[in-house]
Amino acid sequence: MAGLKPFVDAAIVAVGSELLTPMRMDTNSLFITEQLNRLGIDVVMKAAVGDDRHRLAYVCRAALDRADLLVLSGGLGPTDDDVTREAVADVLGRTLTEDPAITAHLRARFEARGFKPPMPENNKRQAMVPNGAEVLPNGRGSAPGLWIEEGDRAVVLLPGPPRELKPMLLALVEGRLRERAPGGALMRRVLKITGRIESQTDEDLHPLYAEWEHGTPPVAATILAALGQIELHLSARAASREVAERALEAAAQQACAVLGGDVFSTDGRSMEEVVGGMLTARGLRIALAESCTGGLLTSRLTDVAGSSRYVERAVVTYANEAKIDLLGVAADAIAQHGAVSEPVALAMARGIRQRSSVDVGVGVTGIAGPGGGTPEKPVGTVAVAVAAADDSRSRMFRFHGEREQVKFQATQAALDMVRRMLDETAR
Amino acid sequence: MAGLKPFVDAAIVAVGSELLTPMRMDTNSLFITEQLNRLGIDVVMKAAVGDDRHRLAYVCRAALDRADLLVLSGGLGPTDDDVTREAVADVLGRTLTEDPAITAHLRARFEARGFKPPMPENNKRQAMVPNGAEVLPNGRGSAPGLWIEEGDRAVVLLPGPPRELKPMLLALVEGRLRERAPGGALMRRVLKITGRIESQTDEDLHPLYAEWEHGTPPVAATILAALGQIELHLSARAASREVAERALEAAAQQACAVLGGDVFSTDGRSMEEVVGGMLTARGLRIALAESCTGGLLTSRLTDVAGSSRYVERAVVTYANEAKIDLLGVAADAIAQHGAVSEPVALAMARGIRQRSSVDVGVGVTGIAGPGGGTPEKPVGTVAVAVAAADDSRSRMFRFHGEREQVKFQATQAALDMVRRMLDETAR
Repeated sequence: MAGLKPFVDAAIVAVGSELLTPMRMDTNSLFITEQLNRLGIDVVMKAAVGDDRHRLAYVCRAALDRADLLVLSGGLGPTDDDVTREAVADVLGRTLTEDPAITAHLRARFEARGFKPPMPENNKRQAMVPNGAEVLPNGRGSAPGLWIEEGDRAVVLLPGPPRELKPMLLALVEGRLRERAPGGALMRRVLKITGRIESQTDEDLHPLYAEWEHGTPPVAATILAALGQIELHLSARAASREVAERALEAAAQQACAVLGGDVFSTDGRSMEEVVGGMLTARGLRIALAESCTGGLLTSRLTDVAGSSRYVERAVVTYANEAKIDLLGVAADAIAQHGAVSEPVALAMARGIRQRSSVDVGVGVTGIAGPGGGTPEKPVGTVAVAVAAADDSRSRMFRFHGEREQVKFQATQAALDMVRRMLDETAR
Repeated sequence: MAGLKPFVDAAIVAVGSELLTPMRMDTNSLFITEQLNRLGIDVVMKAAVGDDRHRLAYVCRAALDRADLLVLSGGLGPTDDDVTREAVADVLGRTLTEDPAITAHLRARFEARGFKPPMPENNKRQAMVPNGAEVLPNGRGSAPGLWIEEGDRAVVLLPGPPRELKPMLLALVEGRLRERAPGGALMRRVLKITGRIESQTDEDLHPLYAEWEHGTPPVAATILAALGQIELHLSARAASREVAERALEAAAQQACAVLGGDVFSTDGRSMEEVVGGMLTARGLRIALAESCTGGLLTSRLTDVAGSSRYVERAVVTYANEAKIDLLGVAADAIAQHGAVSEPVALAMARGIRQRSSVDVGVGVTGIAGPGGGTPEKPVGTVAVAVAAADDSRSRMFRFHGEREQVKFQATQAALDMVRRMLDETAR
């Protein structure tokens, strides 16, 4: 390896005509980017190309002109549509030769599955290897990967299915990359924030940006608005992963000092993981009464492994009758305040809490749309309540967006109200 | 326009360093692709590039070398990081000049929001326009779009936020593209299939592929496995949208004749929309009892607008106590068969149906993982039951994947069982 320059810049190319339709997109590149960044390798371009040998070769050539490392995913199957091997051989000016070991492996795989007549000739395409390439065996599928060095640069071919790509990248490619990594790490950290708007957050953090920019190592910061939260993306490149992490940790702490309790996550955890972690740590159980969120609030909480320890039960009460029947909400309260109101949300939260004998009850009722809005309570109006033994709170929200966006924002607001209550009572 | 050749091939480039991190991806290109395809314009390449003027110019040059039309999104903001205008001007060899009308508009927008001191100088960047470009006013944000013709080709610059990009594309760009469209349409259709594996589906459809390929117009077919379903993607390019649609409809009908009731959607509708449509058409109401799916089943059903008409209620009963208390499941049944069993799923389905007086009750109980598995009932084991007045069914499933994947597949299986029951009883 001595004398070869490190891989500083990488390009990622996803291959497959389906990736150029409105229905599919390349997600492998997110995982690949994360692994490359951990080794200090920066991704400078991503592309998606169809199953077209000439176009793919053209894009690979353009990518290699700007990057030290080219990582391709997909197009390694047995059909005529799978052209990644051929396109890369074209670009590097190498011939393809059948690797008998791969053919034997493919045949054994085929026979083990009881297919007959024996393997179609077409499958032999997967055994074709550009001269000088190293074969990366695929433990979970028929398509082997390839590692090809060309002067100072390298081209990596990985299978498209994520369950084949991920283990191959970790087991067979990561070590090869590490040997040629630029001797540092590009690390990232995401802070997640609720309860304030993007421009205000940006303004409040402004004094820190200059400080971070001139730090050693410098920390880069970007603010991005996402549905129901604002994200502060921090990144630092340093000689080692540890030094970069230390700079990110210091920056994260400074940001938290400015933004206070509005920061709910500094380690990438989602809102449901944060709330689940607080409930677990305090040994508390929760129960939920949902109307307009239609089960999404409970589904988010139960996406977290181990949530059966603290999610006792939930009810989705769309109909008023169900609210009365399952939660003991007073028909009077609905008649007087309307189903979408703080008193009804509170009655739902208290009702589910009492009936399930848990520590925390949550009630959500609102108008997800597109129908059901009124001038006083337009689509997006949502009442949320949280009830505990010695504290209960309720609040009205007005969310924008389509039905699914209103649902999500309502669940985010409900989880955030639980988080803030637990946070305050812990002090 | 006479004499200018049509836009046949397009490239889409998304601009923004955040799109090269593991946390974000470009989704604008899906919407852009759909609109281009409807005009018969094919997308041959997609790329994402960071906020780097030289790299972006390089990628734009490579894209324009292969495409008649280049659509860019993002990088039109007021900061130094926003370099799309400059990079495109570099590529086309044009100078940038301030457009006083844009500056006046920006200043008015700024003042209307009550900001003072008046607009920072930096915001004037958004008023810089390459010579010969047409300005596309932005009704929802500060960044105007640009339409630039260069010989036979064109470059379109659109703002990054989807809520600004979409209306601009539809109102100001679509008409310009239509004038130069290749005089036909590339239309797509997705058939969604459950209850069979990908390779079997492929084999069963094989005789049709050749017929479609040689039809007029030809129909291209691709099979893709997705979580909980298989998709058959059909596409046809023809002289008009109508002719293409007719060919797709005929192909869809042929595929349905082969695959029968395993095809649940031929028009892009999701499983929850299909089931919701059947319930609405028959005037039936449904109630759900979920355990391992944790509310996701109900959340999917209530993602559909108007679902409050047929979703009466749901309960999420993680704890055995809640199953007994809210659904009347016999403690004996749990003790004898285990909580994850067909008898318990059936008792849940019947319990929720009776207690809520609806037509259809659904019960789902299983082990979503990562904990809770046993040798006889490993993680991914799920029992699903559907109960109606004169029919009830139950079935055990074994799903693979992570917790969230098991949850999703279980909800898909439950909805599919409801669909098949409704389908059969309708005959």
